[in-house]
Amino acid sequence: MTTQQHDAQHHADHADHVDFANPALAVTVGDACVNHASHGYIHDKDAYLRRMRRIEGQTRGLAKMIEEEQYCIDILTQVSAVTKALQSVALGLLNEHLSHCVVNAVREGGAEAELKLTEAQQAIARLMRS
Amino acid sequence: MTTQQHDAQHHADHADHVDFANPALAVTVGDACVNHASHGYIHDKDAYLRRMRRIEGQTRGLAKMIEEEQYCIDILTQVSAVTKALQSVALGLLNEHLSHCVVNAVREGGAEAELKLTEAQQAIARLMRS
Amino acid sequence: MTTQQHDAQHHADHADHVDFANPALAVTVGDACVNHASHGYIHDKDAYLRRMRRIEGQTRGLAKMIEEEQYCIDILTQVSAVTKALQSVALGLLNEHLSHCVVNAVREGGAEAELKLTEAQQAIARLMRS
Amino acid sequence: MTTQQHDAQHHADHADHVDFANPALAVTVGDACVNHASHGYIHDKDAYLRRMRRIEGQTRGLAKMIEEEQYCIDILTQVSAVTKALQSVALGLLNEHLSHCVVNAVREGGAEAELKLTEAQQAIARLMRS
Repeated sequence: MTTQQHDAQHHADHADHVDFANPALAVTVGDACVNHASHGYIHDKDAYLRRMRRIEGQTRGLAKMIEEEQYCIDILTQVSAVTKALQSVALGLLNEHLSHCVVNAVREGGAEAELKLTEAQQAIARLMRS
Repeated sequence: MTTQQHDAQHHADHADHVDFANPALAVTVGDACVNHASHGYIHDKDAYLRRMRRIEGQTRGLAKMIEEEQYCIDILTQVSAVTKALQSVALGLLNEHLSHCVVNAVREGGAEAELKLTEAQQAIARLMRS
Repeated sequence: MTTQQHDAQHHADHADHVDFANPALAVTVGDACVNHASHGYIHDKDAYLRRMRRIEGQTRGLAKMIEEEQYCIDILTQVSAVTKALQSVALGLLNEHLSHCVVNAVREGGAEAELKLTEAQQAIARLMRS
Repeated sequence: MTTQQHDAQHHADHADHVDFANPALAVTVGDACVNHASHGYIHDKDAYLRRMRRIEGQTRGLAKMIEEEQYCIDILTQVSAVTKALQSVALGLLNEHLSHCVVNAVREGGAEAELKLTEAQQAIARLMRS
């Protein structure tokens, strides 16, 4: 099941048990963690955007260093810096995901909790290997 | 010593044993491996530039995913992909550096060979840790 | 013991803290996830022990390869294999920890949940860097 | 080609151009770097052996921690430490290999130099991925 499919599936599943008496509950796990569009799941999103803009600038800088055939060791030093910056962003986002989406799903329990845990474990495995 | 300083230092060191009878040799190690400006040390530079443009596009895509608060796991999957692409570029450049600059320095011998080896070993250590 | 059973057990435990009539119950979440001595939190512990014995054997083999000054590249290939085997054990144990201790703590909530999440996040960060 | 085959192949290749006038050269690249048995290519071999004994002890300790079902996070912290220690040994051995075997092969030139470089590059790639 793709994320998109999961998204659709999830909303279908939840359509019939929205709690109209308690609108705050109508946007629980599914919405806040699958379609985040307006839920601000990322704390200090601006800080992440600034970090990503800097990383984007660094990759542009790397292309320029290669274009100008700058000293190879300097290029490699810069690649190490960009890789570390990316890993640090990934770790921050993973922490937010664990603290919000996974925690919410675990509290809700059931298949959603299983799915969220498995997804997180697979993401951690990918990050450890990359 | 910065790369710039090293560059200057290197050219000063070599000033008194330039082989005027064989100008092609006068630009081997120092020029080809410290100031590459016109020596094409990177085989298939265009391929590296294409890879870096793609990586730059991916980092821009990551910023957009965060901006739109797309699903965290999808963002992490993309970060893993970008990290792998960067590591692959680094490995390619390191291989070129070892095959050309380090090999040339080793053939020339002396302090330059030591310096080039130490630099390469430090770059490998940084890449292994990042 | 299933998570559900454990959960129920846990709440029973906390009513009067230590149940002297039922020593098996004197183990709370804290105990089950800090001092596991008899609680089998690791699924298929024997499989993990077999993997660790193999890794131990591989490190002994590495010492022998160095002792005999075997070909350096062969030693490095073996180090890569042992590192991968260790990372794989770590990932398996982390998954068990997330699925049991962290999930239980999250269901219980409060400071324990915070602590368990923070600990897990720090462990993930260390694994990503090593 | 296995290391053993390579070894045999290598000795066959070199049999007909041993320099009898200069016996010191007859044991350089081939013997010192493929069959190291008595050539001490590893500087301070005892230090490497001590490090490997410590790593072996740490892996035995890990098995004991799992056997006793010690706290998972403590086990993971120990796995990170062992992985770092292994990577550090690998980096040290790689540096010795580059400084001795690869440098000697490069000075000798020809197919052996190519082979040694390619082997080293592949080992670096494996270490970066593990």
